[in-house]
Amino acid sequence: MIRKHFAGFAASALALAVSAQAFAGTVTTDGADIMIKTKGGLEVGTTDKEFSFKINGRLQADADSFDGFYTQNGERADETYFRRARIEISGVAFTDWGYTFNRNFGDSSSNWNELAIHYNGWKPVQLSIGRIKPTFGLEEAVSSKWITAIERSAMYDLAPWLNSHEDGEGIRLRATAGMFHGEVGGYRQSGNEDEDGQNNTSFIARGVVAPIVQDDQVLHFGLNFATREVEAGFEEEIESRLSVRGTTEDGPNGNRALFGGAALDGTDQAWGLEAAYMIGPFSVQGEYLTRNADGDAALNGNDNDLEATGYNVQLAYTLTGESRSYKLDGGKFDKIKPENKQLGAWEVFYRYDNITVDETAMLPVGEGGAVPVAGLTVDSAEAAAKTHTIGVNWYANEAVKISANYLKTSVDDVVNANGDDDGDAISLRAQYVF
Amino acid sequence: MIRKHFAGFAASALALAVSAQAFAGTVTTDGADIMIKTKGGLEVGTTDKEFSFKINGRLQADADSFDGFYTQNGERADETYFRRARIEISGVAFTDWGYTFNRNFGDSSSNWNELAIHYNGWKPVQLSIGRIKPTFGLEEAVSSKWITAIERSAMYDLAPWLNSHEDGEGIRLRATAGMFHGEVGGYRQSGNEDEDGQNNTSFIARGVVAPIVQDDQVLHFGLNFATREVEAGFEEEIESRLSVRGTTEDGPNGNRALFGGAALDGTDQAWGLEAAYMIGPFSVQGEYLTRNADGDAALNGNDNDLEATGYNVQLAYTLTGESRSYKLDGGKFDKIKPENKQLGAWEVFYRYDNITVDETAMLPVGEGGAVPVAGLTVDSAEAAAKTHTIGVNWYANEAVKISANYLKTSVDDVVNANGDDDGDAISLRAQYVF
Amino acid sequence: MIRKHFAGFAASALALAVSAQAFAGTVTTDGADIMIKTKGGLEVGTTDKEFSFKINGRLQADADSFDGFYTQNGERADETYFRRARIEISGVAFTDWGYTFNRNFGDSSSNWNELAIHYNGWKPVQLSIGRIKPTFGLEEAVSSKWITAIERSAMYDLAPWLNSHEDGEGIRLRATAGMFHGEVGGYRQSGNEDEDGQNNTSFIARGVVAPIVQDDQVLHFGLNFATREVEAGFEEEIESRLSVRGTTEDGPNGNRALFGGAALDGTDQAWGLEAAYMIGPFSVQGEYLTRNADGDAALNGNDNDLEATGYNVQLAYTLTGESRSYKLDGGKFDKIKPENKQLGAWEVFYRYDNITVDETAMLPVGEGGAVPVAGLTVDSAEAAAKTHTIGVNWYANEAVKISANYLKTSVDDVVNANGDDDGDAISLRAQYVF
Repeated sequence: MIRKHFAGFAASALALAVSAQAFAGTVTTDGADIMIKTKGGLEVGTTDKEFSFKINGRLQADADSFDGFYTQNGERADETYFRRARIEISGVAFTDWGYTFNRNFGDSSSNWNELAIHYNGWKPVQLSIGRIKPTFGLEEAVSSKWITAIERSAMYDLAPWLNSHEDGEGIRLRATAGMFHGEVGGYRQSGNEDEDGQNNTSFIARGVVAPIVQDDQVLHFGLNFATREVEAGFEEEIESRLSVRGTTEDGPNGNRALFGGAALDGTDQAWGLEAAYMIGPFSVQGEYLTRNADGDAALNGNDNDLEATGYNVQLAYTLTGESRSYKLDGGKFDKIKPENKQLGAWEVFYRYDNITVDETAMLPVGEGGAVPVAGLTVDSAEAAAKTHTIGVNWYANEAVKISANYLKTSVDDVVNANGDDDGDAISLRAQYVF
Repeated sequence: MIRKHFAGFAASALALAVSAQAFAGTVTTDGADIMIKTKGGLEVGTTDKEFSFKINGRLQADADSFDGFYTQNGERADETYFRRARIEISGVAFTDWGYTFNRNFGDSSSNWNELAIHYNGWKPVQLSIGRIKPTFGLEEAVSSKWITAIERSAMYDLAPWLNSHEDGEGIRLRATAGMFHGEVGGYRQSGNEDEDGQNNTSFIARGVVAPIVQDDQVLHFGLNFATREVEAGFEEEIESRLSVRGTTEDGPNGNRALFGGAALDGTDQAWGLEAAYMIGPFSVQGEYLTRNADGDAALNGNDNDLEATGYNVQLAYTLTGESRSYKLDGGKFDKIKPENKQLGAWEVFYRYDNITVDETAMLPVGEGGAVPVAGLTVDSAEAAAKTHTIGVNWYANEAVKISANYLKTSVDDVVNANGDDDGDAISLRAQYVF
Repeated sequence: MIRKHFAGFAASALALAVSAQAFAGTVTTDGADIMIKTKGGLEVGTTDKEFSFKINGRLQADADSFDGFYTQNGERADETYFRRARIEISGVAFTDWGYTFNRNFGDSSSNWNELAIHYNGWKPVQLSIGRIKPTFGLEEAVSSKWITAIERSAMYDLAPWLNSHEDGEGIRLRATAGMFHGEVGGYRQSGNEDEDGQNNTSFIARGVVAPIVQDDQVLHFGLNFATREVEAGFEEEIESRLSVRGTTEDGPNGNRALFGGAALDGTDQAWGLEAAYMIGPFSVQGEYLTRNADGDAALNGNDNDLEATGYNVQLAYTLTGESRSYKLDGGKFDKIKPENKQLGAWEVFYRYDNITVDETAMLPVGEGGAVPVAGLTVDSAEAAAKTHTIGVNWYANEAVKISANYLKTSVDDVVNANGDDDGDAISLRAQYVF
């Protein structure tokens, strides 16, 4: 340790000119050398990587204005709310063992986003156990801090269990090597259990291959698969906010319509495909998801399955020239770092979402007194929605991002209480990441 | 960076005498120089002020004993509880952008005290967005850590929306320049919305002028104004604990009486005045508040408005001679720093509170089976309370404050279930600030 | 301060060889010298001990599989859950004043484990005020991080108020001197109050004498006493999970049977004895508890008292040779530190628990439609349980502990809905302490 001081703190006759700063106190450790960082959060770690501790967080303050199908009565509603207010504590002890405490603090309730123990001793494989959000799809792989649109694609509403711990616990293996990244996990999602209280396990896997990973060019492909068994009578409903969260954030007039649903018995499966190409400031990406779940005749008087398909395509362009960053570890895009500290980075994008419930055992219907479309039967119903989103993101710096989105949606085979089959919305977000 | 080391860490032949401390590990950063502080909490910041991170908190453990009008049956009740248990995380990134995560952790529920993003780039103006507590009045401007009495004046119970985010979001501008401090904000307080889910905005402004701001002398004046529109049928009740919080902290016998109320429709406005003078260990301060809200005939069978007026006067004297500290940025008094580390600082005070509901659409009534005063009508009712508080504060140091208050209240036009129209209370508080 | 730099940072001509590390930023304070530590958590304190700040935490991810009497229908159930997810913030200001914020963050609700202010100025006595868990018994004195079995003995289920703050507040004195440790406290446990809202106080005391306290040998004796008055009609039920927590962690089939209960009026008292001997890797310990509470004829049609007795004996052996650590301050065993960093420490143990409700005013009965044992009366009932637990603990390092327990229980005078009077369980735990 002494030798480091000799090397680290140079001295000479000049040193006799003692500055004011010299009157400050010293900071030392009782063991290994430590490095400290703050970019608004805090990171403290030993330089030998044996131990570390971090506190980070994110705040997303959102405002939405929406009408038509997005509301129950078709009139314009507005809503302000905190989309996420998350504190993240993580650390490492004895080199190979890590932990994550990520908690979201809401108004009336709070929940764990991730609460897990990690073992990193079998490189390149990481083993995690605890409350873990599985990952199915590219947009879900991207942190909520750095997705391009304010909300992720409605496609994911077709099967929320693919990307949710559902207040359960799981085990996950992750690895990144060469041009490949993969993760596979078994998750005991809460609520899916038999009459004795034995829980079923959901298996969710994602594989990514990225033949090109450069600072200014990325080519990415992904394949996702998930399967679970459910007990007779397990009820699943496909509802969608169509990417406008304000519709369900304590407003009385928001419409989160039911697109389909069924009592299930048997296997519930989903496949997903993803592809992305980025060159310089431009990127294009697309995803496809299909779900097929076995129906149960018991509950709805019919034994229809629950089948749904969705896809999205997104084009993004950074006006100020920066490329999106990409991390193969996670198979995901990450933040845009502004090159010009005064101007920040400016990004524009367009996304097209398409969802269809191909088979349902329940009639699609809007919220709050809406009635099913006249003449529709569970066999003829094929509720669908197409949503166009355009938006602009201002990355003021690496901590602050301001976003504005305009969404226009139109639906088939489902209406709100006013009979509307289309609607539009403006969403704003102020985000602070530390 | 190297040059700083030369200057900062003087060296000479003496340095060859290496102390035991030299065997401890070093602490460095990977970039800008950092300064660390702890006074029980933690503060880490770069010396160039570009980044910082802080964790602070406060704990207030209270005990109350109260009888007469403060209880439902007039018998003596007691209560111990945590008034506040707050963790505060805040920081700065890229010099001009700050955040605040202040959360109160209660027994059964928790809530945000402040959750906001700040922009400090337009000096002297600070822009804040998020969940922000507006400020109306001097006692509300003072932190709950450093108010003189254990609870603030009952005057503020006449219009709680003046000093509450009410689980909503807002935008606020603050500035301090010369002898002036001001803040103005628009707040979308939760619950005040129309049938389409469009929220109304409350506008709340405070202006302070302090012609004298010295360590041992302060002259302070303040003017407050607030206005909001409410939808037909919006119901407001004026209830007061009369500065004894234990009356509503899970005890079965506490009486938080209804002094008045009305269904509103139209404008709800309030004006406030404040003045304070401090010289040496002595200070006097007073506040006045008046509220006028338009009634709605629909709900209570009468169209009376809701009108109320209150004021308070406080005298405080520090026996150990210290002056209260004052911050023009915020227009508020702050902590007393004990000069004698053994003795701490000792402060005594007296406060007189007076509230009157001048017009009401609901009959004043106590809780728990109490009946309105015989012969009273909504037109003749003029429920009022006068509360005397005397107290002593021991500032053991800058972290610990122990307080004892004695309160005596008497009311008009409202009684408890036992018919009492007066009551008294003893309140104790142990406070730890870190 | 300057002199420390001279001493602490040696310099010479060698220093001219500036290493890469020299380009890193410096870390200083604006006052007293500070020392920083991380072992996965964070500790920052001034070297003169005047101020400090710490963040720590613990995570326990558990999985249980259980059948027979442990379930309602006798079929095998399983459950995964977080037993504890706790963040602990603590600190010291002005040398003698400390605080503790220990909060457990659950799925749907969160609660304070400890929330207190401490005064350490009257050495060796520590005074604490706030929400404090009292301690009655050796296993309860040991931190939940370092108890040998996954769950503590069922003995403590006979009187939960002995070791719970019950959402109330208290004052506690603790002292350690010579071979003695003691603590005594008065606790206003929530719910135990009269009709006026005046709370009763529970008094709980523990005294420990440890004639031998060496690294590899400990002899420990303890005596515990608790007493409280309860108001007429205060109802107490003795339920037990029999050391399998999964029976009540959101599973629909778990059986937490009622072993006895009574409406009380008067005095509720308990005595406890404890003894332990450790030599090298081997330890044996035992505890005895008896409770006697005065019954109230009003509620159950009989005036039976509530009387119960329990005891446990535990043998533990560390296969890798380490001794358990012991702290007289707290009168408790603590962590096992693995000597071999690759292998960790391996410990096996056996525990026998025995509980009996000697007198009850309510018939013992299982959950979920179970009926009392045929022919049993409240006067003849003597519900009892004997539980054998064997287990193995792997201390991978000082942060990570993996545990597996097998439990076998048999009961008298109470059955589940299927008529079972015995059951077994496997419990697993992954623990991370930082």
